Amino acid sequence: MISAQIKSQLMNIVSPENYDDSNAGRLVYSYDATPQYQSMPDAVVAPRCTDEVSRILKLCNTHRIPVVPRGSGTNLCAGTCPTEGGIVLLFKHMNQIVEIDEENLTMTVQPGVITLDLIQAAEEKGLFYPPDPSSMKISTIGGNINENSGGLRGLKYGVTRDYVMALEIVLANGDIIRTGGKLAKDVAGYDLTRLFVGSEGTLGVITQATLKLIPAPETKKTVLALYEDIDSAAKTVSNIIASKIIPTTLEFLDQPTLQVIEDFAKIGLPVHAKAVLLIEQDGTEETVNRDISVIEEICKKGNAVSVQTAKTEAEAEDLRNARRAALSALARLKPTTILEDATVPRSAIAAMVKAINRIAEQYDLTICTFGHAGDGNLHPTCTTDVRNSEEMERVERAFADIFKKAVELGGTITGEHGVGEMKAPYLELKLGEAGVNAMRAVKQAFDPNNIMNPGKVFAKDSRKRVVVSK
Amino acid sequence: MISAQIKSQLMNIVSPENYDDSNAGRLVYSYDATPQYQSMPDAVVAPRCTDEVSRILKLCNTHRIPVVPRGSGTNLCAGTCPTEGGIVLLFKHMNQIVEIDEENLTMTVQPGVITLDLIQAAEEKGLFYPPDPSSMKISTIGGNINENSGGLRGLKYGVTRDYVMALEIVLANGDIIRTGGKLAKDVAGYDLTRLFVGSEGTLGVITQATLKLIPAPETKKTVLALYEDIDSAAKTVSNIIASKIIPTTLEFLDQPTLQVIEDFAKIGLPVHAKAVLLIEQDGTEETVNRDISVIEEICKKGNAVSVQTAKTEAEAEDLRNARRAALSALARLKPTTILEDATVPRSAIAAMVKAINRIAEQYDLTICTFGHAGDGNLHPTCTTDVRNSEEMERVERAFADIFKKAVELGGTITGEHGVGEMKAPYLELKLGEAGVNAMRAVKQAFDPNNIMNPGKVFAKDSRKRVVVSK
Repeated sequence: MISAQIKSQLMNIVSPENYDDSNAGRLVYSYDATPQYQSMPDAVVAPRCTDEVSRILKLCNTHRIPVVPRGSGTNLCAGTCPTEGGIVLLFKHMNQIVEIDEENLTMTVQPGVITLDLIQAAEEKGLFYPPDPSSMKISTIGGNINENSGGLRGLKYGVTRDYVMALEIVLANGDIIRTGGKLAKDVAGYDLTRLFVGSEGTLGVITQATLKLIPAPETKKTVLALYEDIDSAAKTVSNIIASKIIPTTLEFLDQPTLQVIEDFAKIGLPVHAKAVLLIEQDGTEETVNRDISVIEEICKKGNAVSVQTAKTEAEAEDLRNARRAALSALARLKPTTILEDATVPRSAIAAMVKAINRIAEQYDLTICTFGHAGDGNLHPTCTTDVRNSEEMERVERAFADIFKKAVELGGTITGEHGVGEMKAPYLELKLGEAGVNAMRAVKQAFDPNNIMNPGKVFAKDSRKRVVVSK
Repeated sequence: MISAQIKSQLMNIVSPENYDDSNAGRLVYSYDATPQYQSMPDAVVAPRCTDEVSRILKLCNTHRIPVVPRGSGTNLCAGTCPTEGGIVLLFKHMNQIVEIDEENLTMTVQPGVITLDLIQAAEEKGLFYPPDPSSMKISTIGGNINENSGGLRGLKYGVTRDYVMALEIVLANGDIIRTGGKLAKDVAGYDLTRLFVGSEGTLGVITQATLKLIPAPETKKTVLALYEDIDSAAKTVSNIIASKIIPTTLEFLDQPTLQVIEDFAKIGLPVHAKAVLLIEQDGTEETVNRDISVIEEICKKGNAVSVQTAKTEAEAEDLRNARRAALSALARLKPTTILEDATVPRSAIAAMVKAINRIAEQYDLTICTFGHAGDGNLHPTCTTDVRNSEEMERVERAFADIFKKAVELGGTITGEHGVGEMKAPYLELKLGEAGVNAMRAVKQAFDPNNIMNPGKVFAKDSRKRVVVSK
């Protein structure tokens, strides 16, 4: 609870118009994109600069008030749901691209910049910021950094972590620290930059980031390969990599996903295929042409029933957009959509997809599977109805089995969505007790009063997803 | 000090032949490649497996005995000098390549594997492990990981950190944890993998690592460009990057360095040039040819007095080896060689080189400068004599000025050599008090009894390099 005195101090820091504790204002920020989680914050606060963030945290740390930093709330792990109340910290005023440095190939941004805006700003200079989470039209870079977001181009280009060079961070005690720099090499002490990437707002508040840009690829091409069975598609994925080609994108969609996307996007997708690979390569024209013809050959040899290269960039863009629309399309089917991201080594994709199908059957559920096959990052997605508590019970048990299977295959419980509140109970499955203890020690070191996004990453108890907090 | 009882327990864990507390045995491990640091350990212990490491750490933690993990001791920051005594942990028995996984493009290794051996093992499979520290013929991968080693290919391919996917770690309390996996994407909790990379043995002991491999580039070409002034060479570096080409290697050597290397290697280097750029590009044949011809053009337009592309791979290899021999060559000049690695944003290279020359003049010292110009990672190297305490005093003051200048230019006190004991007094210059405090809190979280490589990274007091410990 925020006392009248603290409220007045917070209003004094950010000015009254940036402090909102109305019911309507709090309601808006009581949930994020994650189904089944809702909890009211005590107030919503929008700082205008780093110094204000520092003063807010000092105050909250003194009075043990939870602080939940939030971008656009597109995460799927209840990472920004204020499950323990406190204040939601909004970055709507800290949304500037501070600098594009063409000599050092960097971009410096405030956390509230929309991902797509910065991608386009880089493109305007002939440069490239590769991480492209599906939510990039609305997600913020601050959210991407806190979740270490991935995307479709992760196979070749890596994830957000690989593009964060420097951070300005406000710690729980209000201290402002700066990590890294416009430096390809920097080993001055521990790598706090990467420790904060993916820390889900539980260690401090990121107030500025310097991102690495790379020269934009000259050209790209997109191939769609259709299969009558999942095994052949999975085998093709392995064969492409084994041929020493790393495509930009190597996406997998199963038949139910295809059908749903086609119903939604109506671009003439081959809904009869049992599995589809969407493959993209970029680079110089010669390299792209050569790689794509090798890829086409591998797909054909691997029992693809059809292999087509998009003839125009518009056609390729349609395919990419269709893939990005998967979640929205699936969300139309039933009241509740639960999208997961169990991830396995690339070699285990076929085994994982089959396990998911078996588990779906066992629990009598509809689970569509699509995802980034090239990095083994699958998105088994269950369309269900939160009001049907008997079915939700089965959903929870099915996903617990899916996570167990992923870990058993050398994988992880989350490839790019984060742990948040939702997957906290499963963390120990991946890390063991000693691993979780080591992480808890890090949390304790940075945030001894547990004010930073409390209840996230670490489970308080064994309760699973089927709980609506507060 | 190690009591008779603890000695007997340690001998019991590793077997008597892997415990050495003889004077000769301890003397060998009383120093590393860093000049001016020497300190006797109490014993040298060589475990044969992870379980033995765990039992050793548990014992040392209970009895507060310092543990200094050590590969080949090639580091240049006194990172493996046992300055507080205790045991040196040797990995001579844990030196196996455990697996090369061609489907997932990974290699799993024990810490004692020699870097060059694993690079060659990857090459035999048509794969590529890019990090290539100059010491790679003798350095171990465990040492590389602990120091986050860079190398000549860092500009295009990144550093050791970018290739570590998973670690097995023994914590100070003996707990064994496993981080990451054969996974391109994994956001299950904090990124402990990258926190341990570059942690200099101060947080735990790495007992196994899974490394990322990439397809080997098809071909490569090497260009040598000669300049009459440093500014033109530095400007060329910027122009190459601005042309949207990222070469594999972009090395800078000043005239004194050139002269010394030529005296040593005798391969006909142009010793009259004021500055030389050694530029390498790899990739597909078309891309390499195209990039190299653009690079040649940029060099010529940038006032290079000579631009030559190596005609054969043997000629290129001679140039690369000459560059790698820089430290050895410089070390022949005078009894003591102090090689530093102040690093700046790429755009600040000319300013930094000029500042180094000015500082050398001011303190009347010989400082040669060479390094990885493409990543702003310079190696100002002072040839001096440790017995001349008056000159050493000037050396210390000169390097303090160099570090200050690097930080002032947006750089760092160390790009790839690490902090160790040697640069600990300068850490605050880069990070500020709050930054150092945050790192101390991480250290405290993992190693509350301060047994892991104590005295490294964090300064006990303000003493600088000119101290021989114990």
